Amino acid sequence: MVDIAMIGTGGGMPMVERYLSAALINFKGRKILVDSGEGTQVSMRILGWGFKSIDVICITHSHGDHIVGLPGLLGTIGNSGREEPIIILGPKGIKDVIKGLRVICPYLPYELIIIENPHNIKLSVDKNRMNFEDRFEGDIIINSLELDHSASCIGYNFIINRRPKFDVNKAELNNVPRKLWSTLQKVESVKEDNIIYTKDMVLGDIRKGIKISYITDSRPIKEIINFISRSDLFICEGTYGNNEDMEKAIKNKHMTFSEAANLAKEGMVKELLLTHFSPSLIEPEMYLINATSIFYNTVVAYDRIIKTIKFTD
Amino acid sequence: MVDIAMIGTGGGMPMVERYLSAALINFKGRKILVDSGEGTQVSMRILGWGFKSIDVICITHSHGDHIVGLPGLLGTIGNSGREEPIIILGPKGIKDVIKGLRVICPYLPYELIIIENPHNIKLSVDKNRMNFEDRFEGDIIINSLELDHSASCIGYNFIINRRPKFDVNKAELNNVPRKLWSTLQKVESVKEDNIIYTKDMVLGDIRKGIKISYITDSRPIKEIINFISRSDLFICEGTYGNNEDMEKAIKNKHMTFSEAANLAKEGMVKELLLTHFSPSLIEPEMYLINATSIFYNTVVAYDRIIKTIKFTD
Repeated sequence: MVDIAMIGTGGGMPMVERYLSAALINFKGRKILVDSGEGTQVSMRILGWGFKSIDVICITHSHGDHIVGLPGLLGTIGNSGREEPIIILGPKGIKDVIKGLRVICPYLPYELIIIENPHNIKLSVDKNRMNFEDRFEGDIIINSLELDHSASCIGYNFIINRRPKFDVNKAELNNVPRKLWSTLQKVESVKEDNIIYTKDMVLGDIRKGIKISYITDSRPIKEIINFISRSDLFICEGTYGNNEDMEKAIKNKHMTFSEAANLAKEGMVKELLLTHFSPSLIEPEMYLINATSIFYNTVVAYDRIIKTIKFTD
Repeated sequence: MVDIAMIGTGGGMPMVERYLSAALINFKGRKILVDSGEGTQVSMRILGWGFKSIDVICITHSHGDHIVGLPGLLGTIGNSGREEPIIILGPKGIKDVIKGLRVICPYLPYELIIIENPHNIKLSVDKNRMNFEDRFEGDIIINSLELDHSASCIGYNFIINRRPKFDVNKAELNNVPRKLWSTLQKVESVKEDNIIYTKDMVLGDIRKGIKISYITDSRPIKEIINFISRSDLFICEGTYGNNEDMEKAIKNKHMTFSEAANLAKEGMVKELLLTHFSPSLIEPEMYLINATSIFYNTVVAYDRIIKTIKFTD
């Protein structure tokens, strides 16, 4: 099961009831934060999921409404007692941007591991941390896609894998000694009496995982369709609700609700969650029909809406 | 008349009901912002005084809780249509800090004029702008004082001068031609029929102005007493309410309520407004007695409390 909380659903400027871009992915109590606009800390405090358990921060781009909250947040995470490194992913140039922002939080009690243009980042997840994992397929795999915005900007997708179950029939069929059953669920292989036993001798088939995609800010380029393909949840910017704002969308390198819905439809996702609303869009719900008429399962996000996705397999 | 709104009254981390350090001084509709912690934009939007009319930003120091909101705010001011330069004052090193923060708002439609360790900054105020003023005494004079904190940090005082009134008796006594009366209230002198008429020939005595002082963050060093002397409003940090937190106050270079009250008493100010409360200080009012027992006219600030100070003369 994965929970996703939209921390801030505004674009451009923070509004009283709509903070700037941020989303939190919670898997087994460990967290991935995507973007960190101004107000992220305040909204996270209202949400109450804590700060110390944020292991990964994915930044889409370095426009203020997506990153202003980062230095303050890093300080607050430091105050929460965290000492383990935090992994930060971002577009090309993000290292310099973070270096600049850190003039106001030069001392942190933990290390930052910053990766530009991340691809195929495999992470293991246990109750203490998400960490790099090279041996297995990874509990979470993160990929990015270059988008079409007025700054260097990347979208993300997150594959949350489900570890295969222990299969007693398979273990017996493979004559794996009972005393190795538990160990073999944790390591690649075990040698006993000159026989090598591998973990696939006791584990069932790979089970269907969960896919979450996050696209903001961008024009609706065709590369997005493959990248978000068959997502369980497709979080997408819908800066403008009204189709008449298409000119603005093109000029400012954003999308309308209907453009996001077209991507959702072509990408055959399960659900579209619209976010990153222009300050001029007072009531996004008014324009929901512009999306649902193209892709029915569309939801207009609001600050701290929580989506829970269950493993189906 | 001057209005002062406390935009954020928290220190360290933003709380749900208490944003980080910022205060707004409103004189004739033009604004001076002091500090800009995270959430400043949101709280300012609730307050509703607008963004475009901020002419001066005074930064006390570059700790995150006082400056994180600056780059986002500068962007929002840009979006408000401002094209006139903004004056930024701050401690030594503030130019580099702002340069760092501007990685996320590199393009602004107006110029920033940054002055480190400002002293005797004279400003004229009209309905369009606060601007540097060297000829007259200035409508507002800003001075700073180096404080004792864990970073390079300065306090501010603001003298709001009141222009002298036109004095018809004086004008007649000085034989100033009636047609020059209006002009002489706006310029230094006028020559007519080979006689030089100066503005003091038509203007009355200088009238008592308003003094506002702003001290955060600091230990209560003795230099503060002279700097805040006879302020109409003394805004001072009271990070800790409980006298038992004195050890923390010394260690973290902050003040307790009673230390702030002692400064107010010795500085003979009219009113003390406590702010910058530690996140651990849930109900600052509980400790107000620790200040009022030393200096009676003390108020515990909260986000968007407004103080109005009238000219008395």
